[in-house]
Amino acid sequence: MNPLAPINRLAAVFSKLPGVGKRSGLRMALRVARDPGGLVPDLVAALREVQEQVGACSRCGYLTVRDQDPCALCEDPGRDDTLLCVVEDPQDIILIEESGSFRGRYHALLGKLSPRKGEGLAKPRLEALFRRVGEGKVREVILALNTDVESDATAAYIHERLTESGVRVTRLAFGIPAGSAIAYSDSVTLARALQGRQVV
Amino acid sequence: MNPLAPINRLAAVFSKLPGVGKRSGLRMALRVARDPGGLVPDLVAALREVQEQVGACSRCGYLTVRDQDPCALCEDPGRDDTLLCVVEDPQDIILIEESGSFRGRYHALLGKLSPRKGEGLAKPRLEALFRRVGEGKVREVILALNTDVESDATAAYIHERLTESGVRVTRLAFGIPAGSAIAYSDSVTLARALQGRQVV
Repeated sequence: MNPLAPINRLAAVFSKLPGVGKRSGLRMALRVARDPGGLVPDLVAALREVQEQVGACSRCGYLTVRDQDPCALCEDPGRDDTLLCVVEDPQDIILIEESGSFRGRYHALLGKLSPRKGEGLAKPRLEALFRRVGEGKVREVILALNTDVESDATAAYIHERLTESGVRVTRLAFGIPAGSAIAYSDSVTLARALQGRQVV
Repeated sequence: MNPLAPINRLAAVFSKLPGVGKRSGLRMALRVARDPGGLVPDLVAALREVQEQVGACSRCGYLTVRDQDPCALCEDPGRDDTLLCVVEDPQDIILIEESGSFRGRYHALLGKLSPRKGEGLAKPRLEALFRRVGEGKVREVILALNTDVESDATAAYIHERLTESGVRVTRLAFGIPAGSAIAYSDSVTLARALQGRQVV
């Protein structure tokens, strides 16, 4: 048997994870092969724990414990039902929560529109967003989307679909990141920061 | 229970793999949490297979099937025992084999000397190299090491230790990579390519 065959199979599975390419998957698999013992049991146990205990909230798309749906964020009575923050990915919710600057509800799209490739967004999550807004509690939809072409298309589409609902649709400010310098900003960022300039 | 706890535990284990940082480990763990079903069983099976079937060759450090030691490369009667190619990592052996341009034997150091941090190289692999050379068959040691400070220190150390053995010690050529342009080369690469210039 060729010892590379199991390595290549493991590398191929690793490569399905985000940010892992063919060569980095191989490096990871070789690290596993060279492990003196603890890594594989740790990884298998942690994988099983996530698989068995963690699921997605059917309402907002954020992480939740298997037997709690909707999730703790959706059920928290202390949060503002009139503010709905739309993100692309559950990871974005973690980061916004860490910033401690938002106390409304969330809605994760789990993707975005990709005009070039026809579509790309799991449409059901978009329709679920419009249904949630249609329930009548939401006054403002905050689009916390990324800044690429697909995210812009998704933002435009959501805005268009919600025009007649009377709900305010806003988007995170574009500008110079905190701690950064104008000298390091690209021209698109500078143009958007100028466009969005604010009175001091 | 906080659904982030199992995610963070999985992310921490992922971060032990080479090239995976804190944030990329988290992204990978979130991908696992969102998986509709196939990923975890595939990953667990592939991890187990590598753990059970693949080991390191005690002679050259390359991958081998658990019950075959020394490995197929070490045992292949068609290879040249007088040429010994020294690499830092088993992955480098895979790449050199893919290039099809070497038919000697290999020796993986599984690390390198790190003068700044005292040492860093698993010394036994270096001593094993000197023992192999001492067996008398090897005529040329080809250092296929990387190009950073630690690799240079390792090359210098091996060269010094083998000076009195009468064995030829060579190192892979430094120069402009194939398919690249002089305009894209940094000054160190250019200086080394000039130094190593060859008659056409």
